[in-house]
Amino acid sequence: MSVDGVDFVHRQLGPEDGVPLILLIHLAGNLDNWDPRVVDGLAARRRVITFGNRGVGGSGGSTPDTIEAMAHDAVRFIRALGFDQVDLFGLSMGGFITQVIAEEEPHLVRKVILAGTGPAGGHGIDKVPALAVQATIKGTLTRQDPKLSLFFTDTASGRRAGRALLQRLEERTDNRDRDISLPSFRAQLKAVRRWGRRTPSDLSAIRQPALVANGENDRMVPSQNTIGLAARLPRSELIPLYPDAGHGGIFQYHEDFVARALGFLES
Amino acid sequence: MSVDGVDFVHRQLGPEDGVPLILLIHLAGNLDNWDPRVVDGLAARRRVITFGNRGVGGSGGSTPDTIEAMAHDAVRFIRALGFDQVDLFGLSMGGFITQVIAEEEPHLVRKVILAGTGPAGGHGIDKVPALAVQATIKGTLTRQDPKLSLFFTDTASGRRAGRALLQRLEERTDNRDRDISLPSFRAQLKAVRRWGRRTPSDLSAIRQPALVANGENDRMVPSQNTIGLAARLPRSELIPLYPDAGHGGIFQYHEDFVARALGFLES
Repeated sequence: MSVDGVDFVHRQLGPEDGVPLILLIHLAGNLDNWDPRVVDGLAARRRVITFGNRGVGGSGGSTPDTIEAMAHDAVRFIRALGFDQVDLFGLSMGGFITQVIAEEEPHLVRKVILAGTGPAGGHGIDKVPALAVQATIKGTLTRQDPKLSLFFTDTASGRRAGRALLQRLEERTDNRDRDISLPSFRAQLKAVRRWGRRTPSDLSAIRQPALVANGENDRMVPSQNTIGLAARLPRSELIPLYPDAGHGGIFQYHEDFVARALGFLES
Repeated sequence: MSVDGVDFVHRQLGPEDGVPLILLIHLAGNLDNWDPRVVDGLAARRRVITFGNRGVGGSGGSTPDTIEAMAHDAVRFIRALGFDQVDLFGLSMGGFITQVIAEEEPHLVRKVILAGTGPAGGHGIDKVPALAVQATIKGTLTRQDPKLSLFFTDTASGRRAGRALLQRLEERTDNRDRDISLPSFRAQLKAVRRWGRRTPSDLSAIRQPALVANGENDRMVPSQNTIGLAARLPRSELIPLYPDAGHGGIFQYHEDFVARALGFLES
């Protein structure tokens, strides 16, 4: 759909009524980076909308280099769909965007789910771009998807969970989203670095109910950020950190996560 | 074989007599990055030795961050094998190393083959590290081997040649070399940048016969460097630049290249 001249790619799944749940994906991700088990699991009971933000994948325009601008683009997209109340589910960088929208648009946002993410100025977040680039290069040298080392623990079950996710991400064969472009990836890296270097927010302005989740050993957005979000958000609920899991914990434990997310949204 | 406490991985092919031909591989390459058609083609008539320099692939030690130190390591390896005269064949960064050895060891080196390479301070060589890193990241985002864009032209026949090379590089199944480590790759990037920023050498000190080859459209080590080598090396022979080919031109035209290389070595 076109908003102010920018075409946003998106997919709608699930029932056509109820408060829609808008999914905001991680750094470098496109529509096909959502675990189908999570999307389909949520869509079994909720109206789910995945979308590519400005300049990402099949969406037009150029990717902004601040999280705030990404949030404003997402709000324009949501309003263009005609919604005046939505739930948000942000993963990693998508969680940064979700926090900005929740704070700036208290009437638009009913509830938020924050996974593998952290607050502005959170511990280690300014290191995410360097980690992502390093893992990308190392992945090329070893012919291994960098997501395995970035999203999963280096244990037998962590590696198994990583390979299983990579397979699930290939299940969709028709109408796949376009890969992110190098300039868009660069702009996102800059935005993430800026978010990591921002003055820490006290989070008290986010008044919506928030469900917070992550693996216990996230080496991208260190898990202590998840604990910090749960501690400082005024109305938060923390899913016990998933054991032997990292940044991709909600994909590794998709059954448990989907059940808890649905329970949170419907409570 | 162990030299001063460092184990160098290497492979010997072809006849066991005659002046050996030592192959020096490109940035990030290991023993398995040599096109088997080129190695086997040369080994049909020459004693061929591929090796992993210090810290690269299965070789021990840590990779130095200057081309000069890499040259000194290669000379130690060659002498430890008991050779007092060799031919050298260097591809890209391996060609930088070859030039240093040829200049510093005029009695050790009989003839040199220089492919996809250029002199110290050559045009655009200081940009190779940035190009390699960019292509690596873009390759990950698009799930495509970066070698396709770095080594081949973006035309129907260039893309076909690239895919064919990638298949040939997978032919060997037993005893493959280890992938290069990230610290070794970083050290090589630094060495290549330094080589690109060095004061241009006049090449007059390289007195050995030199065969020079490349594709006509090398976007890594721009092809004008190949022309420059041929023009300034005192005893050079230039293979007409391969049409619709880039940095991997000698692999794309392996039959022609092998025939000319053998002719040059045996003349």
